[in-house]
Amino acid sequence: MDFTEDTAVAAVKDTIAPDTDPRLAELVGGLVDHLHAYVREVRPTVEEWTAAIEFLTAVGQKCDDTRQEFVLLSDVLGVSMLVETINGQDTGTESTVLGPFHMTESPRREIRDSIDELTGGRDCVVELRVLGADDTPLPGAEVDIWQATAEGFYDVQQPDVQPAGNGRGLFSADDDGRVWFRTVVPSHYPVPTDGPVGDLLGALGRHAFRPAHVHVLATADGHRELTTHLFVAGSSYIDSDAVFAVKKSLIVDFERIEDPEVAARYGLDAGFRLARYDVVLDPARVDVA
Amino acid sequence: MDFTEDTAVAAVKDTIAPDTDPRLAELVGGLVDHLHAYVREVRPTVEEWTAAIEFLTAVGQKCDDTRQEFVLLSDVLGVSMLVETINGQDTGTESTVLGPFHMTESPRREIRDSIDELTGGRDCVVELRVLGADDTPLPGAEVDIWQATAEGFYDVQQPDVQPAGNGRGLFSADDDGRVWFRTVVPSHYPVPTDGPVGDLLGALGRHAFRPAHVHVLATADGHRELTTHLFVAGSSYIDSDAVFAVKKSLIVDFERIEDPEVAARYGLDAGFRLARYDVVLDPARVDVA
Repeated sequence: MDFTEDTAVAAVKDTIAPDTDPRLAELVGGLVDHLHAYVREVRPTVEEWTAAIEFLTAVGQKCDDTRQEFVLLSDVLGVSMLVETINGQDTGTESTVLGPFHMTESPRREIRDSIDELTGGRDCVVELRVLGADDTPLPGAEVDIWQATAEGFYDVQQPDVQPAGNGRGLFSADDDGRVWFRTVVPSHYPVPTDGPVGDLLGALGRHAFRPAHVHVLATADGHRELTTHLFVAGSSYIDSDAVFAVKKSLIVDFERIEDPEVAARYGLDAGFRLARYDVVLDPARVDVA
Repeated sequence: MDFTEDTAVAAVKDTIAPDTDPRLAELVGGLVDHLHAYVREVRPTVEEWTAAIEFLTAVGQKCDDTRQEFVLLSDVLGVSMLVETINGQDTGTESTVLGPFHMTESPRREIRDSIDELTGGRDCVVELRVLGADDTPLPGAEVDIWQATAEGFYDVQQPDVQPAGNGRGLFSADDDGRVWFRTVVPSHYPVPTDGPVGDLLGALGRHAFRPAHVHVLATADGHRELTTHLFVAGSSYIDSDAVFAVKKSLIVDFERIEDPEVAARYGLDAGFRLARYDVVLDPARVDVA
């Protein structure tokens, strides 16, 4: 039987061997269904198909050790956030996208250290409590943090300006499930626009900015891993994140601390900003065999 | 409004600026519709999403001047053939995929030359007539030919064995719209399997073979460009092309010529194989302004 618009999906799916891993067969078979439906609907010309091939190739070739352009493409199409939403927690803190900058290992740091090595971190404190069910503290929980500077750049984007690991830290929660560290208030910033995804955003008339945020990836024994952000309340672009990652429950007041007594608890002079947030982890899912 | 499974498509499509090129908006908007529908249906885990990102990145990074792994991916998913089918001719010769090996310019050759520089081409003749409406010959039509060797390799795959341009030729049709040249009968061959697409085929239990064929790309003033193949009748894999490109009308008898008089017309000894085919081009479409 000749290959036609009507027979194409079956022709491709019929090649998948019966003993293929069932989940792989489902993922690839579903891709064929939806990709063919897209092509039948928009009816690309050969020139448009060629442009799509060239675009995807350029996205792949833009990737290197410090740049993940396919994650960025997934982000700006809302796919990353959709996957994150589907896999979100049941009752704990809401999750959001990993983003393209979690690519290097964060240096291990101690509570109260500054993750900002350029300024020493006298402008901002982030204080988290990692909790499980019924708000039970989770001592020893591991908290991986990464953020941009007050100028809006991650360390990997400025290897000549920032030491590797700047703005990053891997912490263990204390006996109260608490982690706190000094830093700078991060700035909003544009996703990288010097690659094919930036060209796409430009052609669509979309801005490339993300509101200011601190990334948090928390793990604890017996609990589900959580990937999320703390968004700085009042940041520019808080209502129009280029990667759709903002959820109301993740917007945090970075309160200005003017009381010297409160400031002293953090070993700082008054006038810094303090963000406090409870990170609640769901219990690990039990695999039913 | 928070980003949810229900609001995600609208959230992404609403970012497309009103003055965006309407066709680009249609192509990207449709992609968001179908890609999100796929994700909502198969509900990938974060690990599966990560594996997909890594796969696409590897596909892009496998591409170079002589390798187009994204075209190959499009081919094995039946997308290339679907696009070709959608854009096929109305009444002329059926089209089929360009494939990943039309990447270098074919050397200009004269009618009756051999495109196979290794053997001198005494085993096979391909004779085409390029015709327009009502089977009118199209003198001066340009015919670009590329094919694998009898061992199943294109020149670009064997730079140490084959001279660049081997198996390729760009011909101008004579006053009868005719092009003929000497060559070898190409072999069936596997698509390249040493990259991520080969890994995918393996995981799906799919074979990687294409039946034997000669590529033809024909152009003539006032006519639509045609990309097609001539498939060698009786070739292995003629019923299960890994890229779904076979159409019955494109299967050609490579007839064994034993009559010395017929052979003499081609300046060859009897015992070679002769493929004759009429390539019929549709008139160019008139753009309605």
